[in-house]
Amino acid sequence: MEKFTRNQRISAITKILMENPNKIINLNTFTEKFNAAKSTISEDLIAIKDILSRLDMGKVETISGAAGGVKYVCGISKEDSRKFVEELCMILKDRERIIPGNFLYVTDLVFNPYIIQRAGLILASAFNKLDVNYVVTVETKGIPLAYEVAKMLGVQLVVVRRETKVTEGSTVTINYVSGSTNRIQNMSLPKKSIKSKSNCIFIDDFMKAGGTAYGIIDLLKEFDSKLVGIGVLIDNISIDKKLVNEYVSIVDFAGLDESNNAILYPSEKIKL
Amino acid sequence: MEKFTRNQRISAITKILMENPNKIINLNTFTEKFNAAKSTISEDLIAIKDILSRLDMGKVETISGAAGGVKYVCGISKEDSRKFVEELCMILKDRERIIPGNFLYVTDLVFNPYIIQRAGLILASAFNKLDVNYVVTVETKGIPLAYEVAKMLGVQLVVVRRETKVTEGSTVTINYVSGSTNRIQNMSLPKKSIKSKSNCIFIDDFMKAGGTAYGIIDLLKEFDSKLVGIGVLIDNISIDKKLVNEYVSIVDFAGLDESNNAILYPSEKIKL
Repeated sequence: MEKFTRNQRISAITKILMENPNKIINLNTFTEKFNAAKSTISEDLIAIKDILSRLDMGKVETISGAAGGVKYVCGISKEDSRKFVEELCMILKDRERIIPGNFLYVTDLVFNPYIIQRAGLILASAFNKLDVNYVVTVETKGIPLAYEVAKMLGVQLVVVRRETKVTEGSTVTINYVSGSTNRIQNMSLPKKSIKSKSNCIFIDDFMKAGGTAYGIIDLLKEFDSKLVGIGVLIDNISIDKKLVNEYVSIVDFAGLDESNNAILYPSEKIKL
Repeated sequence: MEKFTRNQRISAITKILMENPNKIINLNTFTEKFNAAKSTISEDLIAIKDILSRLDMGKVETISGAAGGVKYVCGISKEDSRKFVEELCMILKDRERIIPGNFLYVTDLVFNPYIIQRAGLILASAFNKLDVNYVVTVETKGIPLAYEVAKMLGVQLVVVRRETKVTEGSTVTINYVSGSTNRIQNMSLPKKSIKSKSNCIFIDDFMKAGGTAYGIIDLLKEFDSKLVGIGVLIDNISIDKKLVNEYVSIVDFAGLDESNNAILYPSEKIKL
């Protein structure tokens, strides 16, 4: 049977851990794959743990017991986080992003893997310590970000639709009032999408008055489940009457200044 | 300044490469981060290259020249790929997935990071050698899969909407005929979302007659760009008149048998 050097095992184990964030991997998986003793694998893991914590790139936790093993818990250093958020603010300040109606064009960013991966890492790190069962979002622009957060937390993503579809089976539909436009809108979710007594977090690209987040709380009640956290990429802080109080955001958008430049800065709601 | 051991550098470099698939990273990034000579980093990279190729887990390519460096190109071993696709077929065969109208309920799977990450890796590996500028999908259920493929290929994701939105600026809208229902539908895309002369691939969760893919070809013409590949998670092969010929799929769905069980097997269109 093949033998591997320590360097080789460490590279491969790092890759496997990272591909399975928040999932417990039994040490036997590694001893079998690399034809090595448990003590050898344990030493490999110590080297990996050590470097991740030194560079503040997340951590490897050991879970003892029969169902035990190790798991990678995502994390990002304050320095990398701050650098990224400052870069994002610069990108957002581009004057060409202001489109008729004084909206900020962000469609390319919410579908840009470079941006979304880093933003997802920051938000997931903020909810790492909660016992989360599902990440919930509303179609369409928040989906990649919510997917990234769900992946990092090792849980299922649930996407609330604006209309019911024949391919979704029985659905639960609620009406809610959009906080910024005061219009009544629909939200639907397949009945089988959330188990009762679940803890959910809501992730979205943009927060205005928070009407959608407020609607999600109502929708989750229909599933006998509750919202334990809210995270958004951009918070429009020029709307000061918010329907929800506790949430984290990455960038604050304070409208346009007199020369029609977007006012943007790293949010105070996330600890950088 | 801090010093790192070879094991530590190898773990951290593996992580950084994997977080930036298909992006060229200059060796200076590593020499500065780890306070090490170029020759030392080169040796680290040789160990990483070696293990990835031995375990068939993707590869690290060296790009020479001034803008050169190394990049991680994703890949999955035939064995892991086959195991995953067989597991996916088993999951899909669950009788509870057949919902009124004889539809297959897949909503949970297309939003499940474990499934989508692996399916995305298989599809991205199929398009690795093409010069792709954008990954295109149509809202909503194909978004996580298309996002994963875009991330692995290191390119921008573009999501075609069913309606135009005020937050998207000027848009291009086309009409197309859905191949399976023969209904006329809309597709819209912001004007600034795709640069002219681009190569795009289309990724979706489900292929019926291929009307959507066919519509995408038309839509891309409006952007003076072309479709160079199509990849789907599930192909309904019981519809034999397809509007597109060349595409890759992961699972073939052949309808229901006499006892109302879904007929599913690993697709022949992907080399496993």
